[in-house]
Amino acid sequence: MSEQRVLGIDPGSHRTGWGVVSLQGSRLLHVASGTIHAGEGSLAMRLRIIGDVLDQVLLEHRPTVMAVETVFHARNAKSALQLGHARGVALLSAARRDLTVFEYTAGQIKQACTGRGRADKDQVQQMVQIVLGVREPMGLDTSDALAAAICHAHMASSAVTELLGAVNRQGSVRMRARSING
Amino acid sequence: MSEQRVLGIDPGSHRTGWGVVSLQGSRLLHVASGTIHAGEGSLAMRLRIIGDVLDQVLLEHRPTVMAVETVFHARNAKSALQLGHARGVALLSAARRDLTVFEYTAGQIKQACTGRGRADKDQVQQMVQIVLGVREPMGLDTSDALAAAICHAHMASSAVTELLGAVNRQGSVRMRARSING
Repeated sequence: MSEQRVLGIDPGSHRTGWGVVSLQGSRLLHVASGTIHAGEGSLAMRLRIIGDVLDQVLLEHRPTVMAVETVFHARNAKSALQLGHARGVALLSAARRDLTVFEYTAGQIKQACTGRGRADKDQVQQMVQIVLGVREPMGLDTSDALAAAICHAHMASSAVTELLGAVNRQGSVRMRARSING
Repeated sequence: MSEQRVLGIDPGSHRTGWGVVSLQGSRLLHVASGTIHAGEGSLAMRLRIIGDVLDQVLLEHRPTVMAVETVFHARNAKSALQLGHARGVALLSAARRDLTVFEYTAGQIKQACTGRGRADKDQVQQMVQIVLGVREPMGLDTSDALAAAICHAHMASSAVTELLGAVNRQGSVRMRARSING
């Protein structure tokens, strides 16, 4: 059975959550996850830590796809800039290993994990742990990253189901997930 | 005579300007400069192009210091996020080669190049070309990057002059440039 490994990312310049899930047919398995604590050094040094750990995660767990939340609104320009630094480093790691990057809105991610587009982070975390059968406690950055990965897996398997249905019905195809790297 | 090579950066997710200057005592020389045109691909692919070219610039011209404009205000959160992506990739390249990164405000950069904190980009470009003796036309991204490098060189040599004066006067030291990865 073909396997797709999805890396979900919740980027931040102090803490970046990451999580890898494996989609095997309709089965979804937890591979590995964690949070990169970038410490209290300079911004450049923190970005280096984030980049180095993500490179290691990509090397070790070999995902082929990255899922990350779309940023529509930031609290302000300063927090958007800080988030952008970490997000840029994550996208660079992905691009250098030829991963396809998919973006999903916060609403899509919450909907995919909890069935509700307005769930809070704790509810998302609870459902992520149930869906993936992870009993060990995890941080909210980790569960947010896994939630993005689950969302992609859900969209990808929905897209496959839809594709098969569409081909059966009329031979046309539609994809709901939006790729941001072609 | 000891030489310090300074890389100035004007980051952007579509175009990133860069410029290397060499400070030899009080002499300032143009080493190399250009603008990275990241093309029309996905954001991740553009960041990869920016990162790869900057890595090549660092390898080829071996600066030991990076100078970049501090971002206080962005037009909006979306443009701050886009700028942050490219800026993060540039800071990562610098950190991976152990460059010290210095930030200067737009006012400091303009003041250092033109003597006026409110000069426009064309005036900055004109002075950059005069100061460095570069006759060939250059883009505004390139001249803005060189302006950041010139600003650091100016601050560094002022700091040295000030340091010598201070040591002569009272043995105390002050530095005006602010390091963000000290």
